[in-house]
Amino acid sequence: MSELSHFDETGAARMVDVSVKSETLREARASAVVRMNPATLALIKDVKLAKGDVLAVARLAGIMGAKRTGDLIPLCHPLPITGVQVDFTYLDDSSLRIDAVVRTFGRTGVEMEALTAASVAALTVYDMCKSVDRVMIIESIRLDSKRGGKSDFVREPG
Amino acid sequence: MSELSHFDETGAARMVDVSVKSETLREARASAVVRMNPATLALIKDVKLAKGDVLAVARLAGIMGAKRTGDLIPLCHPLPITGVQVDFTYLDDSSLRIDAVVRTFGRTGVEMEALTAASVAALTVYDMCKSVDRVMIIESIRLDSKRGGKSDFVREPG
Amino acid sequence: MSELSHFDETGAARMVDVSVKSETLREARASAVVRMNPATLALIKDVKLAKGDVLAVARLAGIMGAKRTGDLIPLCHPLPITGVQVDFTYLDDSSLRIDAVVRTFGRTGVEMEALTAASVAALTVYDMCKSVDRVMIIESIRLDSKRGGKSDFVREPG
Amino acid sequence: MSELSHFDETGAARMVDVSVKSETLREARASAVVRMNPATLALIKDVKLAKGDVLAVARLAGIMGAKRTGDLIPLCHPLPITGVQVDFTYLDDSSLRIDAVVRTFGRTGVEMEALTAASVAALTVYDMCKSVDRVMIIESIRLDSKRGGKSDFVREPG
Amino acid sequence: MSELSHFDETGAARMVDVSVKSETLREARASAVVRMNPATLALIKDVKLAKGDVLAVARLAGIMGAKRTGDLIPLCHPLPITGVQVDFTYLDDSSLRIDAVVRTFGRTGVEMEALTAASVAALTVYDMCKSVDRVMIIESIRLDSKRGGKSDFVREPG
Amino acid sequence: MSELSHFDETGAARMVDVSVKSETLREARASAVVRMNPATLALIKDVKLAKGDVLAVARLAGIMGAKRTGDLIPLCHPLPITGVQVDFTYLDDSSLRIDAVVRTFGRTGVEMEALTAASVAALTVYDMCKSVDRVMIIESIRLDSKRGGKSDFVREPG
Repeated sequence: MSELSHFDETGAARMVDVSVKSETLREARASAVVRMNPATLALIKDVKLAKGDVLAVARLAGIMGAKRTGDLIPLCHPLPITGVQVDFTYLDDSSLRIDAVVRTFGRTGVEMEALTAASVAALTVYDMCKSVDRVMIIESIRLDSKRGGKSDFVREPG
Repeated sequence: MSELSHFDETGAARMVDVSVKSETLREARASAVVRMNPATLALIKDVKLAKGDVLAVARLAGIMGAKRTGDLIPLCHPLPITGVQVDFTYLDDSSLRIDAVVRTFGRTGVEMEALTAASVAALTVYDMCKSVDRVMIIESIRLDSKRGGKSDFVREPG
Repeated sequence: MSELSHFDETGAARMVDVSVKSETLREARASAVVRMNPATLALIKDVKLAKGDVLAVARLAGIMGAKRTGDLIPLCHPLPITGVQVDFTYLDDSSLRIDAVVRTFGRTGVEMEALTAASVAALTVYDMCKSVDRVMIIESIRLDSKRGGKSDFVREPG
Repeated sequence: MSELSHFDETGAARMVDVSVKSETLREARASAVVRMNPATLALIKDVKLAKGDVLAVARLAGIMGAKRTGDLIPLCHPLPITGVQVDFTYLDDSSLRIDAVVRTFGRTGVEMEALTAASVAALTVYDMCKSVDRVMIIESIRLDSKRGGKSDFVREPG
Repeated sequence: MSELSHFDETGAARMVDVSVKSETLREARASAVVRMNPATLALIKDVKLAKGDVLAVARLAGIMGAKRTGDLIPLCHPLPITGVQVDFTYLDDSSLRIDAVVRTFGRTGVEMEALTAASVAALTVYDMCKSVDRVMIIESIRLDSKRGGKSDFVREPG
Repeated sequence: MSELSHFDETGAARMVDVSVKSETLREARASAVVRMNPATLALIKDVKLAKGDVLAVARLAGIMGAKRTGDLIPLCHPLPITGVQVDFTYLDDSSLRIDAVVRTFGRTGVEMEALTAASVAALTVYDMCKSVDRVMIIESIRLDSKRGGKSDFVREPG
């Protein structure tokens, strides 16, 4: 049976000791999708119509959120991250995809930082648009790939 | 055309002025679903098998995350929230539902606080279990209801 | 001789007790000026040339900075601020003015929140442009007016 | 034309990737000047008259502010800074100069940390003295020198 | 059997709902004692000998710590505190007592804020003096009194 | 006479420059004791009776508190800690001992992080149990050992 590394043999939660792991380049990619009314997505797409740039606000929130990961996720290691990008794609007329890439040169991976960046960006899209569309849903927050450390990972399509 | 209240007439982002709104009791309910391998959910369900209580950690993270909402979401008002609950339900053998309820007595609603609580709890479940299951997906982060303020809202089923 | 209210009679620093002051609408306006090379200001003005919107980033930083005031200024009261706006004006070909307005409904004023918003926005302009202009200077951070509480204040011109 | 490194080729803001830059000793020096009524500066100078030490409070605020830089400036890298000093000089009977020195051993510079330390110290002087002098102005926040990294910089006099 | 209010009937931790409690003036007093070598306390007492004012640093840390209570204590309500004082007494030649008073006008008490202020001040004394005395011990962190809310409390002597 | 390293020769507080110290494995162990009514400790011990797990909450608070040390202790270096454990022992029928171990691979020690972890865990025990026992006292917060850096330290028994 696999084990949850965040518990020790007595069942106590802990921040896993990574002191002696070597520092390597780490990268993680995560994404999220925000589903909304087509009229809402039309507003987001047309900065003039919306009178403002929703995605620019959400992008910054995602980048800044990545820096707060260690404050939010109880057993996460605090990490001096060395790069963050957040990008957006329109999947169809009611779906916005958010992609976050986080890098560090450190002793442990940045999966949680990438997932947090995507999540905070998605929540910010919700906040910016909730006055016109309360039924938006954030879907499909997931790790897409990670590099560096013991093993790499690339999510299989579908 | 509906308007995005977080932009002023020149397109500048702003924290909307709620100074003169009256204080009322506000409540928001939000939820999220984490989909995972059945073996992962089995571990979460059986605290002995897992050697620790994943949901207790995630619940605390969600409650504490609600308190950080104003730090994470750029245009959110900082709010002295007065109550938070985070609960879990097993939907089927591979799906965990997270429900967050946030209350305050204030000038604006706590939708973002409830959504943030659910999101941070879900991210923490991911973090706790990622050593055994990297392909978990967080789905369906959404507002379920809000009360207090100008208008109430209850999400329609389905 | 006037007294510094942040020290008690023994010289100890303290957070002044405002528990029994009544809650009123408070507003403060503060500003800052960033002086830079004309070529730098030209870049900021022309979002296409710059390939990005420096002022949109600085505006958000100022708004979020206002929310962190109580964390930064040791003896400041933490305040649930209820509105923030940050705006920009080009004074001449090398000077950018930043104006911040902060409001709350509370027991003490928001001068420090407005000054912090203007300062953090100015520092962010510096950060965004420092790769092309290291000699920028932030000038003239000042309180322009305050309303609410014991006395109002409007800075005299010049 | 020089480029703003905080935007990518599509105009999106990003935290610049410094993962593969080598770690070196970095130092930055920044300063600010607070101009005030001579009576206010006299109070600051005479700890007995003021009944407390304004500069000791401002110094600590500056040091602690340097540690919060990554939380405040959206695209700044979070950095484990390794040394901070904040010092004060009386320039004339109405001007207080604040000098901040920040050091780290890292992949990117600490200019923003030094500028933030000087700014937060200056804002704290304002906060401590605002009960006797609301018209104080913070002037001349600027980078004085930086060492380490691709290029050194020393501001020319005047 | 008394009940722990931070758990609900299912055993889940929660932030207790205080939304409908009325706002009243609340005050809490807490204290701590730091025991150290007499030579260390002599240094603290004699600012000239120590070349700096340990207690002024610890006082500010305590005041700022009170403002972070909601971030540190998982189920604490975030509170806009309205007054904090931290004072010091020499109990004997090796014991320093720290007293913290915190006030708010709110829906729940500030016991944790006062205890956190005293604790952070004590930890800061330790930090400032640890280069000369590693065996210092922080003793007797306790609530001395609380006023406001359902019931008052004054600790009995001894 | 020993010197307090956090002051420079002019008496100014500073964050000591550790830029050129070499990175080594650092570990610190600290502890605290919470004394309470036997009935309170009985509740803590019997998770069923208490209807919830006080120590699980306190453990997480301690781990998360260790990550906030640089925000709380003014002159502490911010450190990317690489491991934290918090454990509990029942000393007798009214005394709960908290042990914290913190590790990093860095330029300075983690004594303050371990002491902060123990303190925040103890304060959280207080918070969780204060509805049934207000007279609890936190005793004996102390450094038990440190390894790494210039000199090791082990506290002598008693």
